[in-house]
Amino acid sequence: MSLLTVGTVAFDAIETPFGKADKIVGGAATYISLAASYFKNDVKLVSVVGDDFPQEVLNDLKKRNISLDGLQVKEGEKSFFWAGKYHYNMNDRDTLDTQLNVLADFDPVLPEAYKDSEFVMLGNLTPAVQMRVLEQLNQRPKAVAMDTMNFWMDTAMDSLKEVISKVDILTINDEEAKQLSGEYSLVRAAHKIFEMGPKYLVIKKGEHGALLFHGEEVFFAPALPLQDVFDPTGAGDTFAGGFMGWLARSGDLSFENMKRAVIYGSVLASFCVEKFGIERLKELTLDEITQRLDRFVRLTHFSVKKLD
Amino acid sequence: MSLLTVGTVAFDAIETPFGKADKIVGGAATYISLAASYFKNDVKLVSVVGDDFPQEVLNDLKKRNISLDGLQVKEGEKSFFWAGKYHYNMNDRDTLDTQLNVLADFDPVLPEAYKDSEFVMLGNLTPAVQMRVLEQLNQRPKAVAMDTMNFWMDTAMDSLKEVISKVDILTINDEEAKQLSGEYSLVRAAHKIFEMGPKYLVIKKGEHGALLFHGEEVFFAPALPLQDVFDPTGAGDTFAGGFMGWLARSGDLSFENMKRAVIYGSVLASFCVEKFGIERLKELTLDEITQRLDRFVRLTHFSVKKLD
Repeated sequence: MSLLTVGTVAFDAIETPFGKADKIVGGAATYISLAASYFKNDVKLVSVVGDDFPQEVLNDLKKRNISLDGLQVKEGEKSFFWAGKYHYNMNDRDTLDTQLNVLADFDPVLPEAYKDSEFVMLGNLTPAVQMRVLEQLNQRPKAVAMDTMNFWMDTAMDSLKEVISKVDILTINDEEAKQLSGEYSLVRAAHKIFEMGPKYLVIKKGEHGALLFHGEEVFFAPALPLQDVFDPTGAGDTFAGGFMGWLARSGDLSFENMKRAVIYGSVLASFCVEKFGIERLKELTLDEITQRLDRFVRLTHFSVKKLD
Repeated sequence: MSLLTVGTVAFDAIETPFGKADKIVGGAATYISLAASYFKNDVKLVSVVGDDFPQEVLNDLKKRNISLDGLQVKEGEKSFFWAGKYHYNMNDRDTLDTQLNVLADFDPVLPEAYKDSEFVMLGNLTPAVQMRVLEQLNQRPKAVAMDTMNFWMDTAMDSLKEVISKVDILTINDEEAKQLSGEYSLVRAAHKIFEMGPKYLVIKKGEHGALLFHGEEVFFAPALPLQDVFDPTGAGDTFAGGFMGWLARSGDLSFENMKRAVIYGSVLASFCVEKFGIERLKELTLDEITQRLDRFVRLTHFSVKKLD
């Protein structure tokens, strides 16, 4: 089934304990669409860049069969830019610079062919822009997921909650879940967030894995323990892309299949962090994905012997 | 097979965001032996208390078929006392007070019946005391596990490393694994620690679960997401007790069975944190343990559908 995503397509400057990249391609929609492209053809991307954005990267996305018909290119303007620095634990980062540029007055316009999308992933963006995307759809999709961040909770809680009330799946990190719900316990946070609208909550905990909540059910997927994590940038978006890519591919919203989606999201995220930026995500093979899925099975599965 | 444990039997004063307990029973060996008692009869406890320690608690331990023949009671002396305060995230705590009392010159003496123990769990203690226990054994046990903490890394690294070189399984938390190995990556830390002697490493991450490393193999068990965590004190020791209890019960050191031990450790720890101190651990039923094991299966297991 068709998958649409909206989010940033941008430049990042990244500093980690392992190296530095001054100006590489990033952005939520870039990571989401690349990850999803391993599960779905013709992922429909909605975003905006300036005329400084490299054509070769757009060609890379097209080669992965990502539709760029919804990508606006603004002549004489610059692409969104974010600079951040990671500390040794790789779970904490400081934002050093944010230049909105084309994002400042981004008005997403959906091509006709996008308006019947059955699965929608709203990447982290101004809640009003996420809402503008939903408003242009011809009918309610089979599933809408959204990502957001603490910044919108601090500055635009009302419009954020309006979007949250319209989505099926919310994907946020643990600190954001606590902030949004006012609860320290993630179980309590999940139930508060269900009252806001979503029926599914994915809590991303970085190197500590991800939790999927639905009603009274809960599923946990660890992050793959890696020898080296070079750059965590985009891992959460990559997770979301793999997750929604699998759901759109299978069209199956059973909890058992949502578990698989969480695992595939974790599989794709485990590749993302192995190199800077989108490098690793451009070059995956089906074999690599299958082998890594096997590693997740060995990492998590055990055979039960009961006490008697 | 027989299981021996050495560690503190003590008083704790605990403050959490949910309440306060001025003087309750705690101690590594208390938690370890209680947890292990659900898997093994006649867990052999080695420790020391003062004459201030309540007889009714000793009776509770005996009711769980824990052998106290190796417990020294020092007339006219006071039991070890620790006071700590947890913050909202429950993963960080401050030590407010430590009174060694009887622990200051503790010389463990193993009764004859203890000296052929096939499984040994060295709870967190002065490394020299842990070594004294190993020295009194008649033969090399089938498996020796040890716990320790950053305090001994700061103050007694040489004697700590000597004990580590003698054990099969090391159970420490993630920060301690990083400190001991000088590595930020837990995968790299595991390989450095294997060079020190142990063949198995369990890294406890509190609410973020536990990792088991062995050679190139790795297994992960999450902590059960709970509505409320009342008191994390003793959760790591309870994990170790459940883990070694299952190993001693089954006598099986295959990696597949070690996975089960990690899960049973996690099951027991999930009960421990539900009430203050050892309250919850005194009252478990076989049904409760089996039901919680089922929750861990649902929390972690997924059926694979491969990409094609």
